[in-house]
Amino acid sequence: MSASERAEEFAGLAARLSDMRARKPLIHHITNTVVMNDTANVTLAIGALPVMAHAAEEVEEMVALASALVLNIGTLTPALIEAMLRAGRRANERGIPIVLDPVGAGATQLRTQSALRLLSSLRITALRGNAAEVGALLGVAGETRGVESISLAEPRESVALRAAREFGCCVAITGARDIVAAVDPAVGERLAWVDNGHPLLASITGSGCMATTLVGAFLAVEPDAWRACLAALVALGLAGERAAEKAEGPGTFRSHLIDALADLTEESFSRGQKVGLVA
Amino acid sequence: MSASERAEEFAGLAARLSDMRARKPLIHHITNTVVMNDTANVTLAIGALPVMAHAAEEVEEMVALASALVLNIGTLTPALIEAMLRAGRRANERGIPIVLDPVGAGATQLRTQSALRLLSSLRITALRGNAAEVGALLGVAGETRGVESISLAEPRESVALRAAREFGCCVAITGARDIVAAVDPAVGERLAWVDNGHPLLASITGSGCMATTLVGAFLAVEPDAWRACLAALVALGLAGERAAEKAEGPGTFRSHLIDALADLTEESFSRGQKVGLVA
Amino acid sequence: MSASERAEEFAGLAARLSDMRARKPLIHHITNTVVMNDTANVTLAIGALPVMAHAAEEVEEMVALASALVLNIGTLTPALIEAMLRAGRRANERGIPIVLDPVGAGATQLRTQSALRLLSSLRITALRGNAAEVGALLGVAGETRGVESISLAEPRESVALRAAREFGCCVAITGARDIVAAVDPAVGERLAWVDNGHPLLASITGSGCMATTLVGAFLAVEPDAWRACLAALVALGLAGERAAEKAEGPGTFRSHLIDALADLTEESFSRGQKVGLVA
Repeated sequence: MSASERAEEFAGLAARLSDMRARKPLIHHITNTVVMNDTANVTLAIGALPVMAHAAEEVEEMVALASALVLNIGTLTPALIEAMLRAGRRANERGIPIVLDPVGAGATQLRTQSALRLLSSLRITALRGNAAEVGALLGVAGETRGVESISLAEPRESVALRAAREFGCCVAITGARDIVAAVDPAVGERLAWVDNGHPLLASITGSGCMATTLVGAFLAVEPDAWRACLAALVALGLAGERAAEKAEGPGTFRSHLIDALADLTEESFSRGQKVGLVA
Repeated sequence: MSASERAEEFAGLAARLSDMRARKPLIHHITNTVVMNDTANVTLAIGALPVMAHAAEEVEEMVALASALVLNIGTLTPALIEAMLRAGRRANERGIPIVLDPVGAGATQLRTQSALRLLSSLRITALRGNAAEVGALLGVAGETRGVESISLAEPRESVALRAAREFGCCVAITGARDIVAAVDPAVGERLAWVDNGHPLLASITGSGCMATTLVGAFLAVEPDAWRACLAALVALGLAGERAAEKAEGPGTFRSHLIDALADLTEESFSRGQKVGLVA
Repeated sequence: MSASERAEEFAGLAARLSDMRARKPLIHHITNTVVMNDTANVTLAIGALPVMAHAAEEVEEMVALASALVLNIGTLTPALIEAMLRAGRRANERGIPIVLDPVGAGATQLRTQSALRLLSSLRITALRGNAAEVGALLGVAGETRGVESISLAEPRESVALRAAREFGCCVAITGARDIVAAVDPAVGERLAWVDNGHPLLASITGSGCMATTLVGAFLAVEPDAWRACLAALVALGLAGERAAEKAEGPGTFRSHLIDALADLTEESFSRGQKVGLVA
């Protein structure tokens, strides 16, 4: 593929940001209690509307109003997984995209099994995790310390592609370099990297959850899940870069990160995106 | 009513702030997990003490220690509603004021029905919501996107008055212009507006919940619920105005908002209040 | 004890900070939903890794991966206490240190009884609370307003020592002056104070919970619980002092506090520590 073909692959990602702000899609989250406030604020900052609702009695009705569903198992319980299944089935019926964040998969059986159950019971559109979490879902040897990825026995690119094939969805593995993989019946393997970002993103809790939330928001305006994942990771990475210029540490970084997301424009997105196809 | 009579109606609102700081009333919250941290910090910043307690086993004992009860259904479950009913009954027995925030009423049956059940089972002192939420409780046609008010078929002033009559409580509908209505057996209809505020308040999650928390805090020091609502909305609006001067976006705004609430004085409150009777 | 002996007692506290950053111990929290985000960020800022997991189905597996367990009853339910007991027993079997924060003990029976049950069922390594909470566990007359300590009928030093003896663990009572007590079979009574800190710490919700989290983190790298408590309280106090220089109120203080924790060095810790033996 030539340089111009590559450039074309990523052209127009930035325009999804303007779509978001024009349409203000509702993003239904069933998510963890640790970063619920941050992910709600991230949703607003990127231009969408968040709603957090997890009671089994209401999730089907709520997801029917939404343009995307975010499932995040960061503080899971069996009751929460049931609510996720209910909401997910309804989302599938209505063709609403779903992103799953398998927080801490590999750390406990409950997390690994619950994530696999969601993947097998629902048509998940995108899976966003760190290397060890995605690896754990495939049984690849790796080390997770709590919800942190420590190491993985296999290159992340091949893990991402295997996961995309195995689970039939787009897979985003985030880290210093983000990897996004999809296996399309028509196009075949699609594998890209995103190099936007800053080390301070790893210094706060929930930057992975924020990435997942942004994937959900972009899925609401971009039908191609692979491109939605790329747009989300560019947006978070760019905001991280801008926020780091103003931050004096992780506490102030967190505030500036929300500011920077809200301040992103189609122009600054387009100019700043560092994205490419894996050779 | 003459201009001087109008001015008199709102005289002394600011003095409640000094009462708050002198008395440090305990405000018991049974509230959502999204903005629990912000509402606790808002309570402290205005000069009261927050306690968040939702276990059915302890809410009656806790509310008996409190000077006001805040019920917020933002992340409701049936168990949480039961705890609210228990706490509310005890609050009623002891004459402790209650403010209800019907977050997302109109979006799902669970939310609409739970809010109505709380309103019919308890003597609620004040109801604080956005236009679509309050409208939904009356069956007025409107559009809620998740927890966001999109439109309402009827003027907010008349919705507020109808709700005040229907539910027998003070009603605050917040938005760019806040409306506060009460129907007093002796005085008759009371309808006022508050124009303090800033668009950045709508850019963060939970500014409605913060308004409700402030209503709870002012109810603890001001027996006239209508005036308590006005004082709360002036306080939040003024803090929003001050915070917006320093903020670079929604993330830094949120931090400055808490600073500005803590920094409010009787003098700056009195000087800055933009409040008036609806003609 | 001579001045040089006293100095020796506190030598090397700062070195635990470097150990923390080198080892990055995993700190398992079963904690409240109000300040979960802050305590996760505090854990990262001091150099450890947080994991929040409370489902009964996974806590035993999770704590087995951790280097310390934090139990905080701030938003307790009976189910959460059961999860704490399960995790705590497993921690005891594996020799993992446990810190307990009896948030609101004395305010309701559920809180007082749950804290006492955890203390009698588990080998707790350290207990961190305010004066009224620790007093309530001993039946000392005092006044708690919600989760705030108002007054205590007995000097905090003697309460701390009695609690250390009664519960067989290290006891840290925090306030303007922090007190840390332990009763060692070999060494006898150990009683120290920490004077680091700033009034703004009392202006935000959860600074007590942050102290508890830091005790958990230092317990993971310092086998002497008394020294771990001192190191934790010096770290929080010093960060509070630094943050106060930059803060314009409680909202910005909270962000700067996380920055300041992340910015602490062995050198600044050592130079700034204000700690001494109670005469």
